[in-house]
Amino acid sequence: MADLSLLFPIIILIITSTTIIFTPPTLASQQLNHLSSNRAPRFLSKHSYSIKTQQEEQQRYKYESKYFYQQLDHFSFLNLPKFSQRYLINTDHWAGPERRGPIFLYCGNEGDIEWFAVNTGFVWEIAPLFGAMVLFPEHRYYGESVPFGSREEAYKNASTLSYLTAEQALADFAVLITDLKRNLSAQACPVVLFGGSYGGMLAAWMRLKYPHVAIGALASSAPILQFEDIVPPETFYNLVSNDFKRESTSCFNTIKESWDALLSEGLKKNGLVQLTKTFHLCRELKSTEDLADWLDSAYSYLAMVDYPYPSAFMMPLPGYPIREVCKRIDGCPNGTTILERIFEGISVYYNYTGELHCFELDDDPHGLDGWNWQACTEMVMPMSSSHDQSMYPTYDFNYSSFQEGCWEEFGVIPRPRWITTEFGGQDIKTALETFGSNIIFSNGLLDPWSGGSVLQNISETIVALVTEEGSPVNPKVIFRCYNNL
Amino acid sequence: MADLSLLFPIIILIITSTTIIFTPPTLASQQLNHLSSNRAPRFLSKHSYSIKTQQEEQQRYKYESKYFYQQLDHFSFLNLPKFSQRYLINTDHWAGPERRGPIFLYCGNEGDIEWFAVNTGFVWEIAPLFGAMVLFPEHRYYGESVPFGSREEAYKNASTLSYLTAEQALADFAVLITDLKRNLSAQACPVVLFGGSYGGMLAAWMRLKYPHVAIGALASSAPILQFEDIVPPETFYNLVSNDFKRESTSCFNTIKESWDALLSEGLKKNGLVQLTKTFHLCRELKSTEDLADWLDSAYSYLAMVDYPYPSAFMMPLPGYPIREVCKRIDGCPNGTTILERIFEGISVYYNYTGELHCFELDDDPHGLDGWNWQACTEMVMPMSSSHDQSMYPTYDFNYSSFQEGCWEEFGVIPRPRWITTEFGGQDIKTALETFGSNIIFSNGLLDPWSGGSVLQNISETIVALVTEEGSPVNPKVIFRCYNNL
Repeated sequence: MADLSLLFPIIILIITSTTIIFTPPTLASQQLNHLSSNRAPRFLSKHSYSIKTQQEEQQRYKYESKYFYQQLDHFSFLNLPKFSQRYLINTDHWAGPERRGPIFLYCGNEGDIEWFAVNTGFVWEIAPLFGAMVLFPEHRYYGESVPFGSREEAYKNASTLSYLTAEQALADFAVLITDLKRNLSAQACPVVLFGGSYGGMLAAWMRLKYPHVAIGALASSAPILQFEDIVPPETFYNLVSNDFKRESTSCFNTIKESWDALLSEGLKKNGLVQLTKTFHLCRELKSTEDLADWLDSAYSYLAMVDYPYPSAFMMPLPGYPIREVCKRIDGCPNGTTILERIFEGISVYYNYTGELHCFELDDDPHGLDGWNWQACTEMVMPMSSSHDQSMYPTYDFNYSSFQEGCWEEFGVIPRPRWITTEFGGQDIKTALETFGSNIIFSNGLLDPWSGGSVLQNISETIVALVTEEGSPVNPKVIFRCYNNL
Repeated sequence: MADLSLLFPIIILIITSTTIIFTPPTLASQQLNHLSSNRAPRFLSKHSYSIKTQQEEQQRYKYESKYFYQQLDHFSFLNLPKFSQRYLINTDHWAGPERRGPIFLYCGNEGDIEWFAVNTGFVWEIAPLFGAMVLFPEHRYYGESVPFGSREEAYKNASTLSYLTAEQALADFAVLITDLKRNLSAQACPVVLFGGSYGGMLAAWMRLKYPHVAIGALASSAPILQFEDIVPPETFYNLVSNDFKRESTSCFNTIKESWDALLSEGLKKNGLVQLTKTFHLCRELKSTEDLADWLDSAYSYLAMVDYPYPSAFMMPLPGYPIREVCKRIDGCPNGTTILERIFEGISVYYNYTGELHCFELDDDPHGLDGWNWQACTEMVMPMSSSHDQSMYPTYDFNYSSFQEGCWEEFGVIPRPRWITTEFGGQDIKTALETFGSNIIFSNGLLDPWSGGSVLQNISETIVALVTEEGSPVNPKVIFRCYNNL
């Protein structure tokens, strides 16, 4: 077993399997703009529904599912019904309380916790080396951890959803682990936090807010600076666009031109029927926006999983999938229309295995979704698309229309300044260079979310691990002695 | 103007005028025990009502009263009415944003903010030296900062009171100062937190939870360790008792014996009438417990304000008031009964000026009071009275009966482990020695609350300032160069 007193300092970890999860608001050409304000960003929760298909991983990682009763509002004393939070636990390799066996806690994201568990191989791989317990608590309002008895009740309206916040989720984690340690007489066992994407944000924030609960955090692909004006709002789309441009300028240009082609096709008589054919859709297209959104989504996700080797995190994909997309777009014979080229390219993402004969667009994008709620309340991440550098339609984030969209969808008014007030972010180096310790921010620079992440060391113990040619996360498990810590 | 880059590090401050505010649960002999569980600890808010009498101080310190609209629940998105938070502000000496003039923020306690403002001379005295703005935000649910339109509505029941928590109050401070700085273009101006007693706890916790908002905190007489089993539950009463014993063992013994005398007198026929006479009460005594509580309160407050010079923070008192109390108790002629001696002693506290001809006991101790609510929800501080070392009746804190009392009074169930889960406290040195910075815990060891405070340095920048012979706070303003920080 490793020396526990050096547990956190001695390793720098990069999660193998977890990855970036956000999807940006849909952008389209000027005429498609309303998509960006009226639809909150889609998120990973839809991917987490695909857990049933991952029997293989589930067999690889063994865990028990347990449940813990949580306060619905940790910060008020309203007489509210408690809810049952699920957590996955494995103690097979735990060294136990006497030997101060550590506890590796993955901060559950916005989705079914099993999906994150089976896609976070890194935690499972290193746990035996450290004699660590592995713990995956589920985030409230996701998976099985829904209050009010059912998902229908929990997602009924703004009142029932109102306790779906990051602060409440962090308090859930803190209460759960404190209780668990007490019950196991494991108070002296150090807790190390892990998390990717939103879960990475939670891991970093939890180390900052609950230092007495956890000794350190690995926050992978955690865009904690993607709020207010901390980074330029064009950052995300510029990075996605650059990932395509570096593979092929003509590919970038084709995509950039495709939005107008799409729009003008859609405006034609029978245009939607023609688009349905061109894109091999299973059902007749209802609006050009839906198709634009479907394409936008694919490009963004591709940038997030642009691994140099075949992977199947979100979709089965070849290595360097963006290169493959661009090869298809660029490689069409002369005379191929822009939209036909786009279809060829996008098929790499949606149908690499070639099994599909037609495509279903997303499920009802206006359906109530937890992440949509979070994006409409706390997680207000302004996103614009620049005229010159982005391959997406030009778009300037408009807070007023964003707010209107949230009011229409949920009857809630966002608090766009709250996250930075509660967790900081503005001038983060000044705030944290003499405060806090033991946080690793890991990012791959190809990842479009890296632009909103911490990419430079803040202090000797709050450090950035950057992989230049890396996608969201470097796939290899890296241990590095870190003697300075 | 002082060098602002060294603003926090270079001085160690001890607040002149703020002081300890808690009163412990009443203890009496075995038969009086129920007082301890059924009545939540009285608190300073009652003292803060006396502000009208302090015209002189009010004229000394000039400030403007302003108001700011706050979310009632920062941590949920329930559609609740906002409330108006009062804050006092003085910018007479502020160097302004260009010169990065600092902002001294006193974390409002459980009472009218004006009372704390006029009793915190230290902040006013040093502000000109630093070119600092002075800001006294009021704590929600106290003074004028009550939600739901009126005190009656706010204190109506457990639902309306449910947002009276420390976390919400800290978030109020964070939101207010962030907004104020933005409006003044003063984002670069450092904020330094001050606070005494519960306000000191808030100051320390705020620096820990909002390091991006404030660069440091002076937490005076802040018993952040008086929770769960972190310090022995006998600590408080032992310290009060020692303050008396060090002046006179016979005084200590007389008080220790008085509870039984009181009880047996009260049980006699016409005993309450006799006690009313002995203690010169204005109205006939309704129960022995009320009188015991009144005495208990005086001893505890005396220990908190045992200054070596005359003062008038809570009551007009001579220097070394406990010495004076004991002189009176011990100095009675032979043949004086125990209870007569007690009356002579207690008159030092309640009637040093000799103006009163009879005494009113406390107002309805069961009246709804903000601190009582806080003590019944988050601020669960177990208090026992030891058989040997305490001059109070022996009492073992009983959580079950405490919980019952809270249920009876407010219809609320306390969360006794929440504060340590949210803010830490258990094994604080381990948690904070490599985390956090710039907190000064100042305490006088005569102060009974010092036992639950941080009395040893935690790290180079989280330090304890201890005044051995000091009451809650050393009255002198002390500046010390602190080059190591």
